[in-house]
Amino acid sequence: MNIHIQLLPFPIPPGLLSHRVVVVIDILRATSVMVQAMSQGAREIIPVKTVEEAFQMVKSFPRGTTVLGGERESRKIEGFDLGNSPREYQGEKVTGKRLILTTTNGTKAFYAVSSGKKVLVGSFLNIAAVAERCFQLDRDLLIYLSGDEGNFSLEDTVCGGMLIDRIIQKGGKSFLLTDASRSAHILFQKFEANILESFYLSQHGRNLVDRGFEEDLPYCAQVDMTNLVPVFKDGVIKIS
Amino acid sequence: MNIHIQLLPFPIPPGLLSHRVVVVIDILRATSVMVQAMSQGAREIIPVKTVEEAFQMVKSFPRGTTVLGGERESRKIEGFDLGNSPREYQGEKVTGKRLILTTTNGTKAFYAVSSGKKVLVGSFLNIAAVAERCFQLDRDLLIYLSGDEGNFSLEDTVCGGMLIDRIIQKGGKSFLLTDASRSAHILFQKFEANILESFYLSQHGRNLVDRGFEEDLPYCAQVDMTNLVPVFKDGVIKIS
Repeated sequence: MNIHIQLLPFPIPPGLLSHRVVVVIDILRATSVMVQAMSQGAREIIPVKTVEEAFQMVKSFPRGTTVLGGERESRKIEGFDLGNSPREYQGEKVTGKRLILTTTNGTKAFYAVSSGKKVLVGSFLNIAAVAERCFQLDRDLLIYLSGDEGNFSLEDTVCGGMLIDRIIQKGGKSFLLTDASRSAHILFQKFEANILESFYLSQHGRNLVDRGFEEDLPYCAQVDMTNLVPVFKDGVIKIS
Repeated sequence: MNIHIQLLPFPIPPGLLSHRVVVVIDILRATSVMVQAMSQGAREIIPVKTVEEAFQMVKSFPRGTTVLGGERESRKIEGFDLGNSPREYQGEKVTGKRLILTTTNGTKAFYAVSSGKKVLVGSFLNIAAVAERCFQLDRDLLIYLSGDEGNFSLEDTVCGGMLIDRIIQKGGKSFLLTDASRSAHILFQKFEANILESFYLSQHGRNLVDRGFEEDLPYCAQVDMTNLVPVFKDGVIKIS
């Protein structure tokens, strides 16, 4: 199994994607929100790129079935039901609901890799389950990091490195690491004893602290809160 | 001093470059060749993008003053005087000569950052001197890694991380690291005791071994062989 990680959120030629399993990671906070919402019984999640698209789309569903979530500059969008703190995605706010989500980095990432053979939603919250799924699917893997407004993101990379670690720990196969996936693995090992430290060192983590979202950091650093593996297909994220 | 490192060889907006000192790194092997050639008394180096350009340019200089060097697929180009092994760049082959150099990754990198305030040539061979120059110039720094055919390169990143280490060790200033420069520093620390190991782990290093250039690896891993800092300006690399 070839394991590659895309360290910066640049476009990937569809030819490189079509035979690979892709895991999208945006720890602070889009994929953490997605996994959290699914763990609370959300029916499905539709990631959209723009606020306008979100407002347009919600009209096409029966009232009361769908909630709008997301952020711009880390903050809840005016007129939306929920922001981008996973802590908000609890109980009846999301259970049984469809979530339309738009965020600065994470939701765009799904469209960058939509031609992947299988596109999974990864986070610390479900890392063991994602690792197990990747191992079972047994195809070449591309870990796609959403980054921080086009820049390299430490916390996404540490999570990617942990996913690599969890997969190769299973053993019994030949794993080929690229320079990038080897480096992500080393960065994970550096922070293994204290994942949260990498959040506080990262630019995005510090921005969230400055903007009043510090409590999201330990929340997103929880490892294996759920065994669910959300899958992105045809524009919609569901459990499958 | 803000210290950033561009982990993948993607274009950088000129606005981000014009006020920064830029250090270009291509350990295997372009910037190692450049520093080696300068240490042997080469007069200047002209990096060019294509083989055709190199053949065209050499005609414009008096015979015997100029040598052609470089590689495609790691190997010497037909009709060229020298390949891309720093070991070749010794004594009278280069002393007092102008070198026209074209390589797969490194020479292109200089044109990607040509609008930098000052563009320096970095390698392990001259790392302390480059660190000292960056420290003295006291401007925001961008370390530009040439990568491996568009991909992330472990050995370039380890060298970038060592440069960061050498600069911040000097102390006495406030250094701001981005997620990327912090990560490069961590990767350097991982290989600090054995720089060469990172070459053997890297894809590019393994390719060179496969193609018969294994001896270049320890050569390029030599630390502080020279105090020269070549500078790229108006298309030409000189000592200044």
